[in-house]
Amino acid sequence: MNCIPTGISAMKGGDGPYSYTNNSSFQRQGVETAKVLINEDIAEKLDINELISSAKLFNIADLGCSVGPNTIIVVENIIESVKLKYQSFCHNNQGALEFQVFFNDIPSNDFNVLFKSFPSDRQYYAAGVPGLFQGRLFPKASLHFVHCSYALHWLSKIPKELTNKTSPAWNKGRIYPANASDDVWEAYSAQFAKDIESFLNARAQELVSGGLMALIISCLPDGSSVKFFDLGFNDLLEKCLNQMVVEGVVSEDMVDSFNLPQYHPSKQEVCTLIQRNLCFSIERMEPLVRPARKGIAPTVEMVISTLRAVYQEIIAGHFGDDIIDELFDRLKKKVVVSDILSQSTDKSWMLELYVLLKRKVD
Amino acid sequence: MNCIPTGISAMKGGDGPYSYTNNSSFQRQGVETAKVLINEDIAEKLDINELISSAKLFNIADLGCSVGPNTIIVVENIIESVKLKYQSFCHNNQGALEFQVFFNDIPSNDFNVLFKSFPSDRQYYAAGVPGLFQGRLFPKASLHFVHCSYALHWLSKIPKELTNKTSPAWNKGRIYPANASDDVWEAYSAQFAKDIESFLNARAQELVSGGLMALIISCLPDGSSVKFFDLGFNDLLEKCLNQMVVEGVVSEDMVDSFNLPQYHPSKQEVCTLIQRNLCFSIERMEPLVRPARKGIAPTVEMVISTLRAVYQEIIAGHFGDDIIDELFDRLKKKVVVSDILSQSTDKSWMLELYVLLKRKVD
Repeated sequence: MNCIPTGISAMKGGDGPYSYTNNSSFQRQGVETAKVLINEDIAEKLDINELISSAKLFNIADLGCSVGPNTIIVVENIIESVKLKYQSFCHNNQGALEFQVFFNDIPSNDFNVLFKSFPSDRQYYAAGVPGLFQGRLFPKASLHFVHCSYALHWLSKIPKELTNKTSPAWNKGRIYPANASDDVWEAYSAQFAKDIESFLNARAQELVSGGLMALIISCLPDGSSVKFFDLGFNDLLEKCLNQMVVEGVVSEDMVDSFNLPQYHPSKQEVCTLIQRNLCFSIERMEPLVRPARKGIAPTVEMVISTLRAVYQEIIAGHFGDDIIDELFDRLKKKVVVSDILSQSTDKSWMLELYVLLKRKVD
Repeated sequence: MNCIPTGISAMKGGDGPYSYTNNSSFQRQGVETAKVLINEDIAEKLDINELISSAKLFNIADLGCSVGPNTIIVVENIIESVKLKYQSFCHNNQGALEFQVFFNDIPSNDFNVLFKSFPSDRQYYAAGVPGLFQGRLFPKASLHFVHCSYALHWLSKIPKELTNKTSPAWNKGRIYPANASDDVWEAYSAQFAKDIESFLNARAQELVSGGLMALIISCLPDGSSVKFFDLGFNDLLEKCLNQMVVEGVVSEDMVDSFNLPQYHPSKQEVCTLIQRNLCFSIERMEPLVRPARKGIAPTVEMVISTLRAVYQEIIAGHFGDDIIDELFDRLKKKVVVSDILSQSTDKSWMLELYVLLKRKVD
């Protein structure tokens, strides 16, 4: 079974003002948008008669589920869709289908909060599964549907060479791969490729033949180059950290040895990596098209809370808790004077790629 | 699915000085003693060939697992025993058996600490399952072995009549059933009977035919009467609370409305309740015989820490956190001046009943 390397952290737990529970509306809009696609795919591509054995059990896993309402919304939607399909294709006398749902994330995820958020009237058996999804988490051929959204861009570990001063891939003063040297970019890219390979190999073992896997992957926008893509917020965060080095608040070594375990691939990169694994057929691969924005654009406070929910644990794990408030105060000021929010209203910072895979018959 | 009523709490989480993790050596000695019995029962009574389908998967659940090393020790022992049986009865070319282990407790259990305590080199797939074990937790016929130790004496809820001032079963000034009126005792006894009935009905659905269930139940010592049995420590705890009422530290109403959700049945009571459920055969039912005490008797500090690990959350849930330190300080003084510790060296305060059940074929 798998160990969690240092430098890897879960989203912010609890239910406080900076928790992921209260700051995941961006991801929520994404999974809401993907609902329609998942429902279509279950209706059209799930061979329910072949999948369901005499046990009348349908097993679902949400990998990288984090905490908060999103994971519950996702699995309830999958269950409703599968029930509809089952009812339309199976005779009534076959008995009701039971559902077991496995909620997975790394062990530092706040499973206590997740478990307390389960609806008491839920129509499924629920279990939490701690572990890295790049490794095996479930017995052979035990899952019928896997869902994984906004999680595959998180690497299982920081490539060693990024923090090795003697390596050409030493990522001095930088915290992510955009605009970095070829060596840095290649180290990130290679780790991502390894992670996707391990992820697909594990799922190929765990999914039954004909089982489906729905992924939402944060990718580069079409037409942007991997090397020169800039998420904007990461760049501002990096600037804040380097400013804190100049002012003596944090040491240069600490920033030099810090790298975000995050890589955004291109759509083509994802496609190539999936095709390399011969166990899955790509049933659908297309960008999520969110409905046009309505109402008010996100405020600076909302953006900062979302970034804290995502990054706080990783940053605190490396630099300690003490710098958090100051760092995010600095980031807030940088966001205010930048044009980053007005830009994000007009252009997409990333492509949200929806992928549906089917486990081929061996 | 099930809701958790008020008045029900898990053991003390975390890994601090009063945590169950660091204060469960009494239970640990019990599960260590039961190892031999479980190993014998798996060797003699597990029909492995009939149990294992082509999936080559063996599913285990530890119900009321709490936190700390005990649950890990228990499941690792079961797995080793089943592997031995499988190797001796099955041909090598049948492939290795996979194990999936479900760790269950109520949602307020500290699953975060439990998950971080999983050995990284474990040879099984692990999942946490939050919920009351008196209700359904797993799909039909999905488990091969269930273990539940030192948990069944915890009731799923406090019978309402105990806190109703107009009921003859109002348990005024008392916190548990010993030496109470017939009505109080009957309310506790009836709730225990309901809970065992629900527990067995749920497990009858979840275990495969031929599946085994090993229970360790804290019972009354042979020959003691249910009504007049006194756990000793509960009596001292009750005295402390009533003393705090007299001194105005807690209100009389608060003590009147507090009852420990705990009932220790007689061996005969357990036997009758199990026989009433027609889905199980009793394969073994005998007291655990712990090896003779060696070394030093437990100190007052050890006893108080153990009691805190078990009772703190329940008491704090009713009275608030503020009384905890004072209450256990008072209890410590009462234990020191009582002869309770010297008694416990000589006589058993409870009978630890080991029960092995087999799910009959429908």
